[in-house]
Amino acid sequence: MFSFDISARCKTTRARTGVIRTKHGDVPTPIFMPVGTQGTVKSLTPEELSACGARIILGNTYHLYLRPGLDVIRLFSGLHGFMNWQGPILTDSGGFQVFSLARLGKIEEEGARFQSHLDGSFHLLTPEKAMEIQIGLNADIAMCLDQCLEYPAERDAATRALELTLKWAKRCRTFWHDRGDRENALFGIVQGGMYTDLRSLSARQTVEIGFDGYALGGLSVGEPKDLMLEMADSTLPLLPDDKPRYIMGVGTPEDLVNLVSLGADMFDCVMPTRNARNGQLFTTAGTLNISNARHASDPGPPDTDCSCYTCSHYSRAYLRHLYMARELLGYRLLTIHNVYYFIHLMAQMRTAIEKDEFEAFKRVFFRQRQP
Amino acid sequence: MFSFDISARCKTTRARTGVIRTKHGDVPTPIFMPVGTQGTVKSLTPEELSACGARIILGNTYHLYLRPGLDVIRLFSGLHGFMNWQGPILTDSGGFQVFSLARLGKIEEEGARFQSHLDGSFHLLTPEKAMEIQIGLNADIAMCLDQCLEYPAERDAATRALELTLKWAKRCRTFWHDRGDRENALFGIVQGGMYTDLRSLSARQTVEIGFDGYALGGLSVGEPKDLMLEMADSTLPLLPDDKPRYIMGVGTPEDLVNLVSLGADMFDCVMPTRNARNGQLFTTAGTLNISNARHASDPGPPDTDCSCYTCSHYSRAYLRHLYMARELLGYRLLTIHNVYYFIHLMAQMRTAIEKDEFEAFKRVFFRQRQP
Repeated sequence: MFSFDISARCKTTRARTGVIRTKHGDVPTPIFMPVGTQGTVKSLTPEELSACGARIILGNTYHLYLRPGLDVIRLFSGLHGFMNWQGPILTDSGGFQVFSLARLGKIEEEGARFQSHLDGSFHLLTPEKAMEIQIGLNADIAMCLDQCLEYPAERDAATRALELTLKWAKRCRTFWHDRGDRENALFGIVQGGMYTDLRSLSARQTVEIGFDGYALGGLSVGEPKDLMLEMADSTLPLLPDDKPRYIMGVGTPEDLVNLVSLGADMFDCVMPTRNARNGQLFTTAGTLNISNARHASDPGPPDTDCSCYTCSHYSRAYLRHLYMARELLGYRLLTIHNVYYFIHLMAQMRTAIEKDEFEAFKRVFFRQRQP
Repeated sequence: MFSFDISARCKTTRARTGVIRTKHGDVPTPIFMPVGTQGTVKSLTPEELSACGARIILGNTYHLYLRPGLDVIRLFSGLHGFMNWQGPILTDSGGFQVFSLARLGKIEEEGARFQSHLDGSFHLLTPEKAMEIQIGLNADIAMCLDQCLEYPAERDAATRALELTLKWAKRCRTFWHDRGDRENALFGIVQGGMYTDLRSLSARQTVEIGFDGYALGGLSVGEPKDLMLEMADSTLPLLPDDKPRYIMGVGTPEDLVNLVSLGADMFDCVMPTRNARNGQLFTTAGTLNISNARHASDPGPPDTDCSCYTCSHYSRAYLRHLYMARELLGYRLLTIHNVYYFIHLMAQMRTAIEKDEFEAFKRVFFRQRQP
């Protein structure tokens, strides 16, 4: 059932458009996936996500495993029914959260040992367990368990992490082959820190195991922007041309445009949703903070070039008022705009690539986004 | 422009149905008005309010005057444009909040002196100022400034408060006559504490001044339920039959049914919205707390008899999960249900009155709501 077809290619960059087919619907690429950590893209209903143009969302295995737990979600045959989102869902493996959120995250050959950040309970997340959970969530796209690194990381540590990630990838692949739904997909994850040769090694060996798609993990973890782009630039060409390429946890609008140029197809990031809740709006003309006093009496929309629900119905003055008064509707209206902006940006890139106008699109984009 | 017509009367109680006409649309009565304190019914968009059946909402003069301030709202020709709600709006006078929220609330003949709960700034809310603000908000229905009493209050204090309220009512009436929009309405407020003779005196003298509708203020301030109903029972018949009668700040579903029986037409209360944010849902079968562990694995809706968006799309298990995880969507979905429940209850009462089945409706209602 799961498939990926390339539709068009940019003549001057590695950018391409395509379609990922899943049993919950088709996803045009390049695509941005809003993050629904706890079974909800914060503050939005599924209908609002659709109205923002969302075609696929991300769920977090770590969070959902701890709360409400797999038993509850299985009552609904998976995450789609539980949260009322009928489109495709990609779930991460939980590996990243074990290191960033859990207490006492500890890596062993067997898996990642950790204590819940909610109640201190002890857990062991093995590759097999990560698969079992994602199968229970009925993810259209599941991710292999990987070992994430902090930045900077020594070469030795990066080598050990990529080797363990490869071992875990094989175990994930085996478990998935035996127990996974054949209509869903499993993606491998390339690690290797900020060392191009290690990234290459990881890419080649991950591809050798064989997955439905490939992700670059361990980017946007604090490294300079140039280094992130260098890793993507050197690694993406090593991934099979006919499989989707996913950059995990990235990034700013500028990052998305640069990474699409380098041949990436899929992205997820909490930036549009999290920054909205902090009052930051992404617009065609740059980024603005709605709490700024200059918006207090501004009857104009956040972004005059935007057709989202928020920009179509509300003023900066009203949005600032809601934000200053900590009204729930404020977080929501700002989230709608940001999610729409990120998703619409991807749609604009797809159109530009298909019309062979991607270079021109990029020039205008970067010029307009300058403050 | 503003008018009120009675459509049907219950043969055995004082219940009646009618239509309030405003320049922003018609309002069938009896009606419940969701409270939009700070220019938003907490967590909901205007479209969601409409989908819940809301026909008129309430705005709080005190809050909006302090933030964002009248200058900002005037840029939008009033509250409707500012908050994107195109239906009718009733605004309170700010009097109640001066006593319940502001610091150093102090009554003088001239008006109510207070310090903002936001920034400590000093303000004097006179009857004229209360009118000026509500005219700036372009309220379809404005309320006179009144002096609210705590419960219990001595007879002397209640007498002084009702006398001052009458003086202020006259000043409001005069200012409104000179400066108000003739298409909007001004309501008088009956005070008198928990003394039926003082309530009668207040009612007769307020009616003598002459308003487009009349409210009972100072109820549901901590008094026993019987006393509240006794005040309404004795005072409502003294108000003109051909004007809308509004009970301010009340109440539970049971209160609404009892007060409609006594001839009340309009209600507002923060209960459906505030209690939703505390996890409490009003249902046909009584009240439930979504945080209760017994809902954790319940795939059924909160209320099997309810057609609201929440009950149509989400389970108790999912709503509990959102609530326990403090997800913004949770507060919103619970709010949608509660607002729908209150508004739908009023619609059921209107239908029952029109079909002359109100007594039967009441019997079923009270029986089903028993835990």
